[in-house]
Amino acid sequence: MGLTIGVDIGGTKIAAGVVDEEGTILETCKVPTPPTAEGVVDAIGNAVREVSAQHPVEAVGIGAAGYVDDKRATVLFAPNIAWRHEALKDKVEQRVGLPVVVENDANAAAWGEYRFGAGQGHDDVVCITLGTGLGGGIVIGGRLHRGRFGVAAEFGHIRVVPDGLLCGCGSQGCWEQYASGRALVRYAQQRAAATPENAEVLLGLGDGTPEGVEGRHVSQAARAGDPVSVDAFRELARWAGAGLADLASLFDPSAFIVGGGVSDEGDLVLDPIRKSFKRWLVGGQWRPHAQVLAAQLGGEAGLVGAADLARQG
Amino acid sequence: MGLTIGVDIGGTKIAAGVVDEEGTILETCKVPTPPTAEGVVDAIGNAVREVSAQHPVEAVGIGAAGYVDDKRATVLFAPNIAWRHEALKDKVEQRVGLPVVVENDANAAAWGEYRFGAGQGHDDVVCITLGTGLGGGIVIGGRLHRGRFGVAAEFGHIRVVPDGLLCGCGSQGCWEQYASGRALVRYAQQRAAATPENAEVLLGLGDGTPEGVEGRHVSQAARAGDPVSVDAFRELARWAGAGLADLASLFDPSAFIVGGGVSDEGDLVLDPIRKSFKRWLVGGQWRPHAQVLAAQLGGEAGLVGAADLARQG
Amino acid sequence: MGLTIGVDIGGTKIAAGVVDEEGTILETCKVPTPPTAEGVVDAIGNAVREVSAQHPVEAVGIGAAGYVDDKRATVLFAPNIAWRHEALKDKVEQRVGLPVVVENDANAAAWGEYRFGAGQGHDDVVCITLGTGLGGGIVIGGRLHRGRFGVAAEFGHIRVVPDGLLCGCGSQGCWEQYASGRALVRYAQQRAAATPENAEVLLGLGDGTPEGVEGRHVSQAARAGDPVSVDAFRELARWAGAGLADLASLFDPSAFIVGGGVSDEGDLVLDPIRKSFKRWLVGGQWRPHAQVLAAQLGGEAGLVGAADLARQG
Amino acid sequence: MGLTIGVDIGGTKIAAGVVDEEGTILETCKVPTPPTAEGVVDAIGNAVREVSAQHPVEAVGIGAAGYVDDKRATVLFAPNIAWRHEALKDKVEQRVGLPVVVENDANAAAWGEYRFGAGQGHDDVVCITLGTGLGGGIVIGGRLHRGRFGVAAEFGHIRVVPDGLLCGCGSQGCWEQYASGRALVRYAQQRAAATPENAEVLLGLGDGTPEGVEGRHVSQAARAGDPVSVDAFRELARWAGAGLADLASLFDPSAFIVGGGVSDEGDLVLDPIRKSFKRWLVGGQWRPHAQVLAAQLGGEAGLVGAADLARQG
Repeated sequence: MGLTIGVDIGGTKIAAGVVDEEGTILETCKVPTPPTAEGVVDAIGNAVREVSAQHPVEAVGIGAAGYVDDKRATVLFAPNIAWRHEALKDKVEQRVGLPVVVENDANAAAWGEYRFGAGQGHDDVVCITLGTGLGGGIVIGGRLHRGRFGVAAEFGHIRVVPDGLLCGCGSQGCWEQYASGRALVRYAQQRAAATPENAEVLLGLGDGTPEGVEGRHVSQAARAGDPVSVDAFRELARWAGAGLADLASLFDPSAFIVGGGVSDEGDLVLDPIRKSFKRWLVGGQWRPHAQVLAAQLGGEAGLVGAADLARQG
Repeated sequence: MGLTIGVDIGGTKIAAGVVDEEGTILETCKVPTPPTAEGVVDAIGNAVREVSAQHPVEAVGIGAAGYVDDKRATVLFAPNIAWRHEALKDKVEQRVGLPVVVENDANAAAWGEYRFGAGQGHDDVVCITLGTGLGGGIVIGGRLHRGRFGVAAEFGHIRVVPDGLLCGCGSQGCWEQYASGRALVRYAQQRAAATPENAEVLLGLGDGTPEGVEGRHVSQAARAGDPVSVDAFRELARWAGAGLADLASLFDPSAFIVGGGVSDEGDLVLDPIRKSFKRWLVGGQWRPHAQVLAAQLGGEAGLVGAADLARQG
Repeated sequence: MGLTIGVDIGGTKIAAGVVDEEGTILETCKVPTPPTAEGVVDAIGNAVREVSAQHPVEAVGIGAAGYVDDKRATVLFAPNIAWRHEALKDKVEQRVGLPVVVENDANAAAWGEYRFGAGQGHDDVVCITLGTGLGGGIVIGGRLHRGRFGVAAEFGHIRVVPDGLLCGCGSQGCWEQYASGRALVRYAQQRAAATPENAEVLLGLGDGTPEGVEGRHVSQAARAGDPVSVDAFRELARWAGAGLADLASLFDPSAFIVGGGVSDEGDLVLDPIRKSFKRWLVGGQWRPHAQVLAAQLGGEAGLVGAADLARQG
Repeated sequence: MGLTIGVDIGGTKIAAGVVDEEGTILETCKVPTPPTAEGVVDAIGNAVREVSAQHPVEAVGIGAAGYVDDKRATVLFAPNIAWRHEALKDKVEQRVGLPVVVENDANAAAWGEYRFGAGQGHDDVVCITLGTGLGGGIVIGGRLHRGRFGVAAEFGHIRVVPDGLLCGCGSQGCWEQYASGRALVRYAQQRAAATPENAEVLLGLGDGTPEGVEGRHVSQAARAGDPVSVDAFRELARWAGAGLADLASLFDPSAFIVGGGVSDEGDLVLDPIRKSFKRWLVGGQWRPHAQVLAAQLGGEAGLVGAADLARQG
């Protein structure tokens, strides 16, 4: 198969792109995410038509947040769009006249990294995406592990603290409450409120209040050595690395790939995660250690991965 | 291939058995586990020769506690025997003149249940073994998931309580400290010490003291309605079910199989685990639920599974 | 001193009452709590004038949520009213021409129970108030323990779960997130969402959804044996009792008094709390146990206690 | 009253000393702690006679680990000596012919620091003793808070981690498992095992293995900047400071005094504890903060305090 289209449905934007067999994006377009479920289907159809006008594409892969069924056709549940048992594959196929594959967005991103990014050369990789929340994807023996019902790799919602923080999913103590961009901001805000004398750089980047602290402030201040910001990254790494150690006990991959906005900070966040991973890895002296790698495709991993999954049919 | 031999190396006994293609054991022998690493290799060799005397066997599968490497040849680390990077496959092959496969014992048991026990008819199953500790095995798409380095499915050592109980592995808060036969006894002992008036049946079965409580007492007393013993099982189920919910978020199998001595109690322990699993399953109303099944092969699952793995080569 | 006035500033109503030396309320009035800090002072002044019209009163005691300074004059911080370093004593004295004492509301309620309620006959009592949140008060050797700066006995905000639930105070894992009326409702809602088949009575009392469950529904359904509701009370008791065990290790009182709306349920909630307290009391077999008593004054404890504190000057 | 004798019963030695009204020790003797309960009484009698030979003493105060009853006469339970409801006061009085007061050893040490050490000038102080374990004492309004039954201030056994580490007391998650000399060593050993490359100094001070690490090694290595040792102190401080924050919510003292062997390290351990205390103090911006002070009397606090309590009768 030749060219395919990848679609990434984000909370604010829908991105569509024509992708070739090497994972190269030939053309893209982005449109705002409509507020209604129907609107999203329309927007996908329009975006697909737009980018495919100049390219002979053969299939469409869609990455969507939420639970996608084992047939890769129906969104069982989406957190941000009112999709409940939404037959997305059929609806989009009718509009665009091309075969469509639907995939969980973090799975698609993991596949993208496996095929064209940091995972090249590995057969067994586990990806975590530290964005606003925490998503994940699993590749075992060169195949995406989707689970019997299509909902595997929901890393963000394993319980790491019994009776812990409330999560949007309704449960408590979910990993994404402790290892995610949102968690990083909370760590910084709490510490800045308690010890503002150690957060002068951080507070100076926003409106001067702990509540005004944003994720990019924490990164910038940490690079400048702001004690509270450095400590917030350390806390994030403490939870991220401990969780990777658990995933090593479960999946035993040859590599972990850490993506998402938080990973844009590179070794500022990766090095503490590696240390924490090593600290918590059970039986570490008796077993080979998985590598902890930074993702390489950035925000385009999902789009590229979805296009490639469509190509593979 | 026709008949093969399965070997199960336990803490106190080594069992060897001739197994046919249907998983039926034709002949077995058991010998005490020698205290030295060399002694164990000798004992395996002797047991294999004994059971194979009357049967034309073609291969040997060995289930051993600990980390087995990805080539299924070397025991990287064993918790109870002083094996460190022990070339078990080579040593036994030299003695018995048959091809040998080494596998983690819980993996072997999971494979046995998948092939001939509760997992028949499923392609994706996750097994947990609630014995003295907690072991596990994973079958994905009809294949045993061993991990890149051979050490996947170490369920017992994922962290479920940060800063929790010390584990023999050196880490803290490992799942097996909260969901295992040993944990069940601890729950009962603690409660019996605090509220002996609610543990009269339980205490009457032993020497009258909380320290004298054993696992079989807890089961027997729970069946008689002893409040402390019922509560101990409930606590065990609370942790076991919550952990299965996490494994569902990660692996999304169609069935969980619960084996090990604790599962001999059947619905006394399975029903509370099912309730707890449902209680903690994230997104439970939007996704198909895995079944939670009792293991069917009892203590022979590992031997049968090891034999079958040897057959498959 | 003869008659005094107690004032209880609640989130929705301000109650004022004339109280005699026996703790009997002779006359009361209630007015809605104004939205502004100034409005509250006005309302207090008016309420005091109204109830004192027919009675020769000599002093006023005010119970207010928040931190009250060691001079019992200034509200350092209030959670529901925009008071920050508010000189409440002076402002009210100017309006009513009587000596005024300001006290934390939970302290006032504890004092009321100690003097005229469940604490009579004890010299060392610790009170917890399970209302919407969790408040507390301490009496040691017949004296209210206010702390050096006036802010002792903030029981609701001791940390019982590291990295636990976010609290309105900005911290995490505070006891009131696990033992309070709000926690009880959360326990019931979570369980009803996960296992609606065990919450038929409970869901039938509200609008049929877990979100529609209110505190009074949980109590009513628990009395009818609704499994989810009974379990919600058990969970509440688990945390309340464990916390009392900690307070026993710290304060070693002769009695605990449990008040607040949740305690209106009497033994439905008190008995599980007693069991849980006994379960977690450290060294329980070697030491005398404090009693766990139900509060007797209901919602008037704070008003009566504030009036009595004013009498004592 | 003039001179009194203080006795401190330790796990390995019994110390007795003549103390004047200023808290000055005029003469002391130390004897090994006998293994039997009767032997300890004999040894106390002998030691008292020896130090009192040249001094006109009027009373004896004894500090003992364990629960001492509200009459300061009977040891209800001792952890290291087989005392169960031991009438220590009567037995020693019969031997030495002087009035005897028995007190919990951490209470005695707290009283010593309050009267003659870091607590001078404060009326409300809370002391914690970070020795092998964690002990505590409370002074409120210039009086030792013993509790109704004599067993208050058992700080070491409040639960800071639900389902946490097993404690010698039979409970789980006790504070002393996380903040004590023993905890410090565990933190260092665990980290040295996981990341020996960060513990070269530390490992070089002992036998080269993590198991060989002792408390004094951790201090010495931390002073040399050994990363694992510094991190072990930081972890200790994390738990010590968070616990002090809880004690502030409960007792609201004007000062905390930190004693015990760990506090010998001075600001190496005090500064991180102060930071952690500030980090976790609830409502910190709205209330005066207690000081966190280093104890001043070292290992003699208990002896001096017991002598002074005897003087006060």
